[in-house]
Amino acid sequence: MNAPYPVLEAIRRPLPAMLGDALKARFAERFSTAAAVREHHGKDESPFPATPPDAVVFAQSNQDVIDAVVLCAEHCTPLIAYGAGSSLEGHLLAIHGGVSLDVSGMNQILAIQAEDLTATVQAGVTRKQLNEALKSSGLFFPIDPGADASLGGMAATRASGTNAVRYGTMRENVLGLSVVTADGRLLRPFNRARKSSAGYDLTRLFVGSEGTLGIITEVTVRLYPIPEAMSAAVVNFPSLDAAVNTVIETIQLGVPVARSEYLCPYTIASINAYSRTRLREAHTLFFEFHGTEASAREQAETVQALARDHGGEDFEWALRPEDRTRLWNARHNAYFALLQSRPGCKGLSTDTCVPISRLADSITGARAILDRASMPFGILGHVGDGNFHCALLIDPANAAEIAESERLNNEIVRLAQSMEGTCTGEHGIGLHKIDFLEHEAGPDAIQLMRAIKRAFDPHNILNPGKIFRS
Amino acid sequence: MNAPYPVLEAIRRPLPAMLGDALKARFAERFSTAAAVREHHGKDESPFPATPPDAVVFAQSNQDVIDAVVLCAEHCTPLIAYGAGSSLEGHLLAIHGGVSLDVSGMNQILAIQAEDLTATVQAGVTRKQLNEALKSSGLFFPIDPGADASLGGMAATRASGTNAVRYGTMRENVLGLSVVTADGRLLRPFNRARKSSAGYDLTRLFVGSEGTLGIITEVTVRLYPIPEAMSAAVVNFPSLDAAVNTVIETIQLGVPVARSEYLCPYTIASINAYSRTRLREAHTLFFEFHGTEASAREQAETVQALARDHGGEDFEWALRPEDRTRLWNARHNAYFALLQSRPGCKGLSTDTCVPISRLADSITGARAILDRASMPFGILGHVGDGNFHCALLIDPANAAEIAESERLNNEIVRLAQSMEGTCTGEHGIGLHKIDFLEHEAGPDAIQLMRAIKRAFDPHNILNPGKIFRS
Repeated sequence: MNAPYPVLEAIRRPLPAMLGDALKARFAERFSTAAAVREHHGKDESPFPATPPDAVVFAQSNQDVIDAVVLCAEHCTPLIAYGAGSSLEGHLLAIHGGVSLDVSGMNQILAIQAEDLTATVQAGVTRKQLNEALKSSGLFFPIDPGADASLGGMAATRASGTNAVRYGTMRENVLGLSVVTADGRLLRPFNRARKSSAGYDLTRLFVGSEGTLGIITEVTVRLYPIPEAMSAAVVNFPSLDAAVNTVIETIQLGVPVARSEYLCPYTIASINAYSRTRLREAHTLFFEFHGTEASAREQAETVQALARDHGGEDFEWALRPEDRTRLWNARHNAYFALLQSRPGCKGLSTDTCVPISRLADSITGARAILDRASMPFGILGHVGDGNFHCALLIDPANAAEIAESERLNNEIVRLAQSMEGTCTGEHGIGLHKIDFLEHEAGPDAIQLMRAIKRAFDPHNILNPGKIFRS
Repeated sequence: MNAPYPVLEAIRRPLPAMLGDALKARFAERFSTAAAVREHHGKDESPFPATPPDAVVFAQSNQDVIDAVVLCAEHCTPLIAYGAGSSLEGHLLAIHGGVSLDVSGMNQILAIQAEDLTATVQAGVTRKQLNEALKSSGLFFPIDPGADASLGGMAATRASGTNAVRYGTMRENVLGLSVVTADGRLLRPFNRARKSSAGYDLTRLFVGSEGTLGIITEVTVRLYPIPEAMSAAVVNFPSLDAAVNTVIETIQLGVPVARSEYLCPYTIASINAYSRTRLREAHTLFFEFHGTEASAREQAETVQALARDHGGEDFEWALRPEDRTRLWNARHNAYFALLQSRPGCKGLSTDTCVPISRLADSITGARAILDRASMPFGILGHVGDGNFHCALLIDPANAAEIAESERLNNEIVRLAQSMEGTCTGEHGIGLHKIDFLEHEAGPDAIQLMRAIKRAFDPHNILNPGKIFRS
């Protein structure tokens, strides 16, 4: 089969034998060139075919990462950080070959500074693992991209998810990072203050840099007290417009909803099949409210009134923790539920995000574009942020379908960009959105980004070919 | 008088005659070399003596800024953006000579996108001007550094102030920037979405870059609906510790206070004299609560209970808008009130910020250091963020006093840094904190910052000698 994605056809040279020997000597059984291991590290949740690295190193410490970087730097060999493998944009694919640096074994919770509402973890710790460790502290970490991603990966892609409408994204919630630079130096966060004006914001520069400027090894994040009251609700609407306008008005009124998620009827049907739920197959919003008993109730009442104005049918409440968990697990599994709805398919997910005033136009515009689609699709997303996903379910062996899905994706992105929106609210650029970024940012901004890349990684060994072509 | 601050003794060459002619031809009466104009643009609110530029250009448009940058770049001549002149760290001082680019005439509100809760303004628009323009919209811009600073300057120093504890700093509230680069290109924000994962976070890199990476010409900021209910209160405590611990517990409980400001008895006395208030001269907290009627009341009740536990005496409420305005005006004028308390003095303000668990240690430690001070001082600040200021009131003609104040400043900063704190929560580095930043960030981080500077401004014409020495 021809590779349908020409971006994958990049120059790669084999792993230098001396480097292989040196890595083997240093990492012993934590160095692998086994085909299955390489294959596993050469794919993610994107629609791209696997593009394996030449070798995999399993890191367990900052020193492991430093040594791997120094050895790869000596041989000008690409190095790709690998966390949970949940990227949707091809971030992990070794299009130039080289070494996948698996940090999933760096999974220690280093410190929970409960009094400061912060925690410091190794990059391979996942969001669920962190929240599990926080259980007795009365605190939680809200950022939640659906998948049980690693904190390092979430920082690297500037991830967000369902709670971002209230708690912000990784941009706002990473307080500090330890990063190994392309020449093997370990940068540590230089303070743990809630705010600082001390020089250039290196932390924010590494957040969202997709492994191209440094390897994130430790992450310090903000935590929040578990709210006194949390309630979730499901509400159905007669139309997409009605659902979306309810959310727009909620945001414009400043109601601090914790979550406000749209799911289309096809997505709901897929969830029902996958998660054995019995949700009504309609245009649906999932809400969550956090606060004191009184303020959570007040928020819910305001949103109920807005929903009613738009024909929303009565809220179905999930008040008990186990009911809320079931609801949000169903939401988090929505992408996998959609994939299951067409066995053997791969998903291509759009990720546009627009100013909230353009959300209705953007999402109904996307819906109209997809009316011409020959493949099934679901629409769902974090509409309170203006961010939604169209998940196109494509047959990976069907080049015509792939081309069609890319055309549709392109149209949806261009529509969002024409509305002062972005091609990616939370998934990142990776391989898939390079052209979109060029169009969106323009040549001058791209040139500055490339200048930063050259300054940080002059030999282009860190995840080369991602964000922009090498 | 000898310049007591050796950092001011930098290499400067006179303005090239050809550049002067070209600027004069381009800007006519908006180009000035008059002594008074230069003097005005060579000082700020820092304790440093005036260090005037060789000329001043008054910009009114992006094109003005581009043309000034291009002309200065041709002659490798320094260019310093000037907004409201309210810097506290010597950002505006022309230690290498060159041109001050006054953007205060760029004071147009370009757009209020009320439905998106955003506004786009020219860099010279001040925070008060923006809030005035928002009056009929039901929205407000919360970031408030005390002084009526320009939005461009606030972005450039990553400013914050009293409301940051709830609404965040300029880091969180700048959505996009237009920036003229060192080679005269105009970068525009490439989207106006609430969140984006599209490439490197150039916006966050320019925020806090203090005019050294580009000239900010336009700022898009987040706005917030004016809360249904706002109330403020003053409460007195038997000790510094009691006041600070009340705030620490408030934050740890997650109470979303809008403001929580500490003021020492000396500061209160100075305010009483300056603003004709009759506040009790005690360790004092000013609080503000935002929310619905019910939630603002609930917050106030929680905080009252915490305050009572620490011996806080009954809240004195400011419920009417005019009373709240009077209270916060008094707070905003506190720095000037302190200056007035010692006629002819200049202020040296510390700006440390520590993790909230270390706040009591940090502030009582600072207090102990200042017990040895020979000059008067006030302590005040945004304690909910772990950020406070010691304002040392020094005789600018007395070299011994200046040296003493720098020693005390140094001790206070080192104490904060030993507690994972930062030398600057919100004022920036400027000239004054270069050594502190070096100590705090360490050589590797400084080297990366310098690499960014070189990549963005290879000829070092943008505010040279700030953040790090040229």
